[in-house]
Amino acid sequence: MSNRHVYECPLRWGDMDALGHVNNGKYVDYLQDARVDFLFRTAVELGVDTLETGLLVARHEVQYRAPLHFRPEPVRIELWISEIRGAQFTVDYEILDLEPTRTTYVEARTKLVPFDFTANRLRRITPEERAVLEGLVGA
Amino acid sequence: MSNRHVYECPLRWGDMDALGHVNNGKYVDYLQDARVDFLFRTAVELGVDTLETGLLVARHEVQYRAPLHFRPEPVRIELWISEIRGAQFTVDYEILDLEPTRTTYVEARTKLVPFDFTANRLRRITPEERAVLEGLVGA
Amino acid sequence: MSNRHVYECPLRWGDMDALGHVNNGKYVDYLQDARVDFLFRTAVELGVDTLETGLLVARHEVQYRAPLHFRPEPVRIELWISEIRGAQFTVDYEILDLEPTRTTYVEARTKLVPFDFTANRLRRITPEERAVLEGLVGA
Amino acid sequence: MSNRHVYECPLRWGDMDALGHVNNGKYVDYLQDARVDFLFRTAVELGVDTLETGLLVARHEVQYRAPLHFRPEPVRIELWISEIRGAQFTVDYEILDLEPTRTTYVEARTKLVPFDFTANRLRRITPEERAVLEGLVGA
Repeated sequence: MSNRHVYECPLRWGDMDALGHVNNGKYVDYLQDARVDFLFRTAVELGVDTLETGLLVARHEVQYRAPLHFRPEPVRIELWISEIRGAQFTVDYEILDLEPTRTTYVEARTKLVPFDFTANRLRRITPEERAVLEGLVGA
Repeated sequence: MSNRHVYECPLRWGDMDALGHVNNGKYVDYLQDARVDFLFRTAVELGVDTLETGLLVARHEVQYRAPLHFRPEPVRIELWISEIRGAQFTVDYEILDLEPTRTTYVEARTKLVPFDFTANRLRRITPEERAVLEGLVGA
Repeated sequence: MSNRHVYECPLRWGDMDALGHVNNGKYVDYLQDARVDFLFRTAVELGVDTLETGLLVARHEVQYRAPLHFRPEPVRIELWISEIRGAQFTVDYEILDLEPTRTTYVEARTKLVPFDFTANRLRRITPEERAVLEGLVGA
Repeated sequence: MSNRHVYECPLRWGDMDALGHVNNGKYVDYLQDARVDFLFRTAVELGVDTLETGLLVARHEVQYRAPLHFRPEPVRIELWISEIRGAQFTVDYEILDLEPTRTTYVEARTKLVPFDFTANRLRRITPEERAVLEGLVGA
């Protein structure tokens, strides 16, 4: 738990679909904003800005555990790094409420690949990036 | 200014389009969330819950003043009631930053009509609703 | 009618909100796709590609006439140019079904300004652009 | 191939994000519309309307193979049933262009569970539903 990054994710009323639940596709947007919060903000604070724009999503796995309805309060997203390889790393997430009892809405996993948009090709993870990512390796 | 309701509107990275600006259609979602914040939360706190589900949007006017880019900080939306009639009222908005200098991104106006979804017809504004709305009449 | 451009706009199931109607903000996306269809496709066919990327939305007015529900069939959007000025032009739209009886869901208007993204400033409408736009002036 | 359902999925200009690609989350919306096309339209034509409203998404897996850019032409989605169990079935998809050369953008898989919204509980697949689903079992 100690290595999890926490993002308080605001909901929008329009995230609900005609069934009155947050639509399954919107959670993928929530995961994106949780990653942006980690990669754009935290990583830049740590002095590594190459993660900010140079990543592609290679794979998502999203497991739906319980339906979520709109409310003014944000929902909590905890994320952490579950694997770092030479040219790929994996982010795991849990979307949940802690109160009144712990309720998990979604468990998910994203594989990300560093990409050099100037050269238009995949690239390896740099040592500086690895150091930042290793700080969030956990479960 | 004293009669303005303030909503701190979070942005999402995905709100930006291929031009790198918040897409013009997303502002309409922002306005919706500002209304929800006022109508669902503030009005319910004041004891009027009929505004919460019984409204239809009749008209939007949106004037774009300056482009907005994603950033982790929310953007400020100020909204107030500019007109109350028998079966219709109007919300005016300004989307802006106060710092470092006051910058207005959007000025907008929405006409709303109370609707009885059970009877499937328009209805008049009730005296209780009018009292809540009058508290936000301003400029 | 003869000067109207017609765009058959596909709906998505997720365009409906928790009230079971197409959400008011989604119509603004529909209008964008109708403009893109005109500006990207028709105009390029006519040999004018500067309209394709060099426009900013300055203002929207959207009047909601009737609710729309998801169905597999597209909805019809008719659009035409209602005004051309030196550095601004206006698109009017009607979102409607012709069958079984003519039903109008939305009437809307967008003011667009040509913008030179390289120089980062407003620019005037060129004679070639004006010729294309004049072909759609109508009511 | 013979058991694949084909859906021609229209793109929207706004599906692109600030990197100029269709955003990874939009593909999940595309998959939803491909399912709706199968479940709402084809299944209803076959006389089974219980699949139309009584399903929950339990899991998505989405593998991104190549980036996609907006164009006026729809992208092709082929989908088929890869597994039918007592109270769950699985849809596999491929998002692709056939021309000028076969290009796969996304491969994906969704687990769906029949749900009785009136009783608010999971339910088993009926024999009639199974017959329709078996017609699309394939690879």
